[in-house]
Amino acid sequence: MLSSIDVKLVYDVAEPTHFCLHLQVADHADQHLREERLQVEPALPLHDYRDPVKGNRFVRFDAPKGQLQVHYRAEVEVNYALPTPGLGEAPVNQIPDEVLHFLSPTRYCESDLLGNAAQQLFCKAPAGLERVQAISDWIHDNIAYTPGSSDATTTAQQIFVQRQGVCRDFAHLGVTFCRALNIPARLVAGYVFFDEPPQDFHAIFEAWLDGRWVLFDPTRMAPVERLVRVGTGRDAKDVAFATLFGKAQLLSKDIAVRESETPPAATPGQPLLRAVA
Amino acid sequence: MLSSIDVKLVYDVAEPTHFCLHLQVADHADQHLREERLQVEPALPLHDYRDPVKGNRFVRFDAPKGQLQVHYRAEVEVNYALPTPGLGEAPVNQIPDEVLHFLSPTRYCESDLLGNAAQQLFCKAPAGLERVQAISDWIHDNIAYTPGSSDATTTAQQIFVQRQGVCRDFAHLGVTFCRALNIPARLVAGYVFFDEPPQDFHAIFEAWLDGRWVLFDPTRMAPVERLVRVGTGRDAKDVAFATLFGKAQLLSKDIAVRESETPPAATPGQPLLRAVA
Amino acid sequence: MLSSIDVKLVYDVAEPTHFCLHLQVADHADQHLREERLQVEPALPLHDYRDPVKGNRFVRFDAPKGQLQVHYRAEVEVNYALPTPGLGEAPVNQIPDEVLHFLSPTRYCESDLLGNAAQQLFCKAPAGLERVQAISDWIHDNIAYTPGSSDATTTAQQIFVQRQGVCRDFAHLGVTFCRALNIPARLVAGYVFFDEPPQDFHAIFEAWLDGRWVLFDPTRMAPVERLVRVGTGRDAKDVAFATLFGKAQLLSKDIAVRESETPPAATPGQPLLRAVA
Amino acid sequence: MLSSIDVKLVYDVAEPTHFCLHLQVADHADQHLREERLQVEPALPLHDYRDPVKGNRFVRFDAPKGQLQVHYRAEVEVNYALPTPGLGEAPVNQIPDEVLHFLSPTRYCESDLLGNAAQQLFCKAPAGLERVQAISDWIHDNIAYTPGSSDATTTAQQIFVQRQGVCRDFAHLGVTFCRALNIPARLVAGYVFFDEPPQDFHAIFEAWLDGRWVLFDPTRMAPVERLVRVGTGRDAKDVAFATLFGKAQLLSKDIAVRESETPPAATPGQPLLRAVA
Repeated sequence: MLSSIDVKLVYDVAEPTHFCLHLQVADHADQHLREERLQVEPALPLHDYRDPVKGNRFVRFDAPKGQLQVHYRAEVEVNYALPTPGLGEAPVNQIPDEVLHFLSPTRYCESDLLGNAAQQLFCKAPAGLERVQAISDWIHDNIAYTPGSSDATTTAQQIFVQRQGVCRDFAHLGVTFCRALNIPARLVAGYVFFDEPPQDFHAIFEAWLDGRWVLFDPTRMAPVERLVRVGTGRDAKDVAFATLFGKAQLLSKDIAVRESETPPAATPGQPLLRAVA
Repeated sequence: MLSSIDVKLVYDVAEPTHFCLHLQVADHADQHLREERLQVEPALPLHDYRDPVKGNRFVRFDAPKGQLQVHYRAEVEVNYALPTPGLGEAPVNQIPDEVLHFLSPTRYCESDLLGNAAQQLFCKAPAGLERVQAISDWIHDNIAYTPGSSDATTTAQQIFVQRQGVCRDFAHLGVTFCRALNIPARLVAGYVFFDEPPQDFHAIFEAWLDGRWVLFDPTRMAPVERLVRVGTGRDAKDVAFATLFGKAQLLSKDIAVRESETPPAATPGQPLLRAVA
Repeated sequence: MLSSIDVKLVYDVAEPTHFCLHLQVADHADQHLREERLQVEPALPLHDYRDPVKGNRFVRFDAPKGQLQVHYRAEVEVNYALPTPGLGEAPVNQIPDEVLHFLSPTRYCESDLLGNAAQQLFCKAPAGLERVQAISDWIHDNIAYTPGSSDATTTAQQIFVQRQGVCRDFAHLGVTFCRALNIPARLVAGYVFFDEPPQDFHAIFEAWLDGRWVLFDPTRMAPVERLVRVGTGRDAKDVAFATLFGKAQLLSKDIAVRESETPPAATPGQPLLRAVA
Repeated sequence: MLSSIDVKLVYDVAEPTHFCLHLQVADHADQHLREERLQVEPALPLHDYRDPVKGNRFVRFDAPKGQLQVHYRAEVEVNYALPTPGLGEAPVNQIPDEVLHFLSPTRYCESDLLGNAAQQLFCKAPAGLERVQAISDWIHDNIAYTPGSSDATTTAQQIFVQRQGVCRDFAHLGVTFCRALNIPARLVAGYVFFDEPPQDFHAIFEAWLDGRWVLFDPTRMAPVERLVRVGTGRDAKDVAFATLFGKAQLLSKDIAVRESETPPAATPGQPLLRAVA
């Protein structure tokens, strides 16, 4: 699968503001970045950062008062391998040290509070892929996808109570149920083509099953194997597409994703990132 | 059913404390108080209060520093009529004015937050008695009775999340689901014989169905028709057995309830309350 | 003070909906209703209800699908007597039985959770009028009046944390602090002229001090002695201006309040309520 | 400062349980481990893990049914340099990439909810060391140290409302206020000698000021420069002294800390960790 991403953000910066953008596709084994361009107007010195463990990439800069435009384009080949049916669940003593902390509760995923509910709802499902699929299905069937029903402070516990939310909330609840059942889980943010516009940033989750991370999308808005990964994190706070320190308002956000099944051959050796400031 | 109640409370009063006790059986059409005695030691001037609408009875007094003993005994005939099977649900426009406010959320019953969950879980149950029975059954099946898992500030929302609680919590969740479905509901506190000791204060709920209040006990600890009613309220704060203003510690609480199927005839005209101070 | 109230509400009723409106000025010793008219279009059978204890008045009716207009006009003389400076605080054992329950926490006023904070902030203020004034001042100084920062489920605890809200939230926090300090308190909703438009429903609170209820407005948007009282309740759920059961959307809400210092003499014997359906 | 640590834990393991213990002193520039011994009885295969970034060390093992004893002893030289008075605050654009995420809210530190309160309380304090000291002082003065008033799920928001907690809660609130003011902050767990027994694990926090991490202890139970660091984390979930997967009960916990001002010379080349299983 070859995906073309085109993101345009326009901000009204009311006072000098430090931006930390997280728009660029991740360094990740399942995808190959063929071409990429990030433009900021007015031209500003950009600082790049790649998280060495997660592969998340950030661009930081100071924006002056005035209008700010961000334009990001990328061509990415996604090669996510679907999991083998029947994939099992690692017993806790076989969860690697670096993965173990994905069992911990986080700001938006209170797995310490939802332990009994998770046991009750999913203890009868067969361990492994089927259990996490049961979690994802339950969320799809019981949480209404309702734009505007949650905000940046909404947590999985609240979603479990109010029974409505958006993709981020669906994913948080999936992460929470998994962790409550001793299955390491984390949030994945990225781009994917939706049948129903408008396109937007998307959030799904992945669970650690028998030695690999497996993606699940409780919204069922798009096939998980098509997601172009931007960020991987404990929860949404780690993968926000923009974190601003100052005073700026997002005036518009346009996201276009195009997918084509047969990707042309990549030209090796070509410099991929051409950040134009 | 004739029930004999015997309650002994011992407090260590660390500084002069105002007591508001709510131990006495209620004025209520379903029960007939045959004999009653309330003793406080040391002897103190007691002030009685009966809520003219709900029939709840309170005794207020100022306790000095030192040990305080309260002893309450009563003999009560309970004649609760079980509801007709198939009892329906009043449409909102037929709920009487004085009953309407039992649809409102209260401190421990956030029916405004649990609306979607209630719809989801119980919308398919037939309206009326069967729906409230479905609510009561769901609570019994999904909430673990776990002493110590909740405290005086725990709300129905928390119980719905943590999936464990005690009788008060079970009742609050029942009240909450009913209100969320436009069925007026309220908390009922009282005495009842439990097969499994120790005896204690009990809390259940009642729902307003087709012109009458119907009792439900999601704990299934005792038949509802045997409950000797002490208090009726919006939620637990209205029917606490003791509210203290000052500094006192409950050292011991002994409650004995005996039930006999064939009550001897009551002697009319006899003064019922003999508060001995 | 003579106040003229003019309220126009327009609803789009999407499906048959039961309305319970609470727009009419209360039966209350501090105010004298000189003239009043309530019109609903289309013409519908209206059912009136007056709460015998609080004096709150409700109109209930079934609205069919379509547009619904409500027009309420009233002329009211308000004679609220400002409290004597130095008014004290009743010790708990002198709080009347019917007033005692205004110490209890309610849905939006978790006085059981904010006890320590209230003690900490206000224990040094002189008991009585000055303490409640200190509470009202603290709220004014520490909570930002920010329309849109809260919603119908926001509680005093949240306001204490987020430090912003609207009049209803200010009043809830006042009620909560008072109750936490064993001062009975309740919410008061009504009409008052604001210097800064737009006019709207207003919410303030009153505390029970030495035998009388005293009004406080932490928003300082208008003098409390000018408030035309519509409702008195434990918290906002008791005094909502409209409670709808069904599916209807408020399209517009226009409220006009005019005040004149010298009221013309009332004509006794005139029928006051002329509900025109 | 030379500190001797002696920790004894006894567990009753009811069913086979996976242990992840976090008792050992951290790899950290401010301290030098002179000698250390970890014993588990019965003898079990132990797996060591050191977080390469934070220096936290964990021991994992599978414990069988039965009693389990853990004994940890260490001698550590602590050389924490107190910060220069007047140390400033880094502007956000100078916070290093790896440090930036310590501005994010976490499970127990809802800095996104307490932004206004933090601004209100600390905006007037001079930026830098003095501001964080003001935060620490405020917590000391306004939160009561009350064992039993919080549990493993209590968050900073709750502590801010209830105004009582233990060392972990004090530290969480400090972390939360700092993050809300764009000062990176994190939790530090360790051992320190308390004047008032019993000794226990301790939790404090550190804030990132002008290029270095500076410790603060809002409990004022011990000088921060004496803390033997065990763990550094986003919040308490990262530095729990024991995380158990299974069913085991802590029967006893004995912690002894001795401090001496003049440390004898260390013998270089000696193997430090002698884990005896």
